[in-house]
Amino acid sequence: MSRRAFIVLICLGALIVAGAPRPLQARAQQSGSNVLPSWNPGPARDAIVAFVERVTKESGADYVPATDRIATFDNDGTLWSEQPIYFQLAFALDRVKTLAPAHPDWKERQPFKGVLEGDMKAVAASGERGMLELVAATHAGNTTAEFDAIVREWIATARHPKFDRPYTDLVYQPMLEVLAYLRANGFKTYIVSGGGIDFMRPWASKVYGISPEQIVGSRAKVRYELRGTEPVLVRLPEVDFIDDKAGKPVGIHQVIGRRPLAAFGNSDGDFEMLEWTTTAPGARFGLIVHHTDGEREWAYDRGSHIGTLARGLDEAPKRGWVVVDMKRDWKVIYPFQK
Amino acid sequence: MSRRAFIVLICLGALIVAGAPRPLQARAQQSGSNVLPSWNPGPARDAIVAFVERVTKESGADYVPATDRIATFDNDGTLWSEQPIYFQLAFALDRVKTLAPAHPDWKERQPFKGVLEGDMKAVAASGERGMLELVAATHAGNTTAEFDAIVREWIATARHPKFDRPYTDLVYQPMLEVLAYLRANGFKTYIVSGGGIDFMRPWASKVYGISPEQIVGSRAKVRYELRGTEPVLVRLPEVDFIDDKAGKPVGIHQVIGRRPLAAFGNSDGDFEMLEWTTTAPGARFGLIVHHTDGEREWAYDRGSHIGTLARGLDEAPKRGWVVVDMKRDWKVIYPFQK
Repeated sequence: MSRRAFIVLICLGALIVAGAPRPLQARAQQSGSNVLPSWNPGPARDAIVAFVERVTKESGADYVPATDRIATFDNDGTLWSEQPIYFQLAFALDRVKTLAPAHPDWKERQPFKGVLEGDMKAVAASGERGMLELVAATHAGNTTAEFDAIVREWIATARHPKFDRPYTDLVYQPMLEVLAYLRANGFKTYIVSGGGIDFMRPWASKVYGISPEQIVGSRAKVRYELRGTEPVLVRLPEVDFIDDKAGKPVGIHQVIGRRPLAAFGNSDGDFEMLEWTTTAPGARFGLIVHHTDGEREWAYDRGSHIGTLARGLDEAPKRGWVVVDMKRDWKVIYPFQK
Repeated sequence: MSRRAFIVLICLGALIVAGAPRPLQARAQQSGSNVLPSWNPGPARDAIVAFVERVTKESGADYVPATDRIATFDNDGTLWSEQPIYFQLAFALDRVKTLAPAHPDWKERQPFKGVLEGDMKAVAASGERGMLELVAATHAGNTTAEFDAIVREWIATARHPKFDRPYTDLVYQPMLEVLAYLRANGFKTYIVSGGGIDFMRPWASKVYGISPEQIVGSRAKVRYELRGTEPVLVRLPEVDFIDDKAGKPVGIHQVIGRRPLAAFGNSDGDFEMLEWTTTAPGARFGLIVHHTDGEREWAYDRGSHIGTLARGLDEAPKRGWVVVDMKRDWKVIYPFQK
């Protein structure tokens, strides 16, 4: 997925469902492998398995010790859905509604008025200033502990408009299997997302098996202060770091300090992460989830306002990146469809 | 250890060896425990063992699952020595000498002139501007890969002036044992240091068993760019983050995302890290290494220009922090003394 925090994130387009499903040739090959059971047999599944076997075979030329097996995953559009709007944006909009009673002026003031009236064009028209106000009002001013509780509450209660299920039900079963398969083979699995790190941490352990210290994301500045004798970290209305595009290799360096062995993304916001990963010496692996299934999920790529994928599609063949065709390669999309 | 990157780090005082050894009462108690063999029996060792047993005993009220067992360690003065100057400063000074032939003007220009002539008062007199020039000249302009190689080369060849040994020989054997003991009990061990993250990463795996992703430190800004088709991260002459004092809980939040169970430091630069750790709910542990051994190491605390320890000493008793008396509690200081 591609964004520059909420600024670009929300800018209008993000609110419109993009593209139409395009029919794609189905594959029906079978294989005896019981690895990655929600993946249809085919080149994508084969490539994942072949790579893992290549770097874990101790006698092999491409063997990599477990301590250096790092795999990074984008989140929105790679591990869970990102339509019709980024789920963190849905959180922000819900948060405005929750906070509105304490802010009577919001009824007459954009972008809040637009959010409260469901007028997303007015929200978008408020521009970058409006978006920053929205971020400040919904993502700042709390302590990190308070924000954690707010996110947990939302994740436990909010429901996705299309599926009428918790947002965390909309994770991709085939990718959960990739995460588990890599970990079973000694990899450390990281999220490297443009999304807010403190929005992902409260639930990623339970949903993905990825603990808070294995998440790289966009960050608000925080300040340490004492409230009485209790120290807190206060979330400030200032962007500290945007973990998107060329920011992803920077975030990887800040937190992980090594080039990953494998990187998984879905949009041009992940391009540099895959480039940084797959141009490093030795065996490397890059994979792009291509959203081709308008019936079971959504179909979009070039020109989409969320998760635009153009350069990645163009360059994947020459860079040796695997392009997953969701419709063709995935038996099921979500765990509840198993 | 305490500093605000190199700015405060170098400011004169840091170049002067502080304090004189103070005699302290020796203990000779023995115990049958074979845990932490380089620790003398006594309250410090007992407190470490008691804490680990308390949080790892599954039937106990204070049991903490392994996934939440995070321990953070300051580096300079806590895991290795920091006298007569921070070892990263020694690196910077050596680097000036290495680079000097390509910079003939340095012979006449402070702070470089002072470094080349060994006139540390002149270096300090160049003030913050001079310090920033020194950092820029020695720590920026390279790619992260180049800087990694430069640090490795220095670590492999430089020798500590007092001991005539590699700097990495000056790690504390008792603390290596604490690291190993904690890891054997399911803890993830992190360095949380005011030192530069990219200065520590190249050797911390080998020396401490701590991998690059388990290091939190001060950071220079880096920029992703292509050199031909090869992506690199270029180190810029700008401070991105200073991981000291109230910055330590911030760095812990950025990278780890949870409050540690245990924190180990040696100076007032670690105060907030210990406060953030030990005021969290449940069983927590804080430990301060007090430099009391002027014969085997160095003796310093209040008023020292490196590793000042005053507030920590004053408040340790009421906060329940363990104060290690190096002279009394450690059988040996360095591995080569075993």
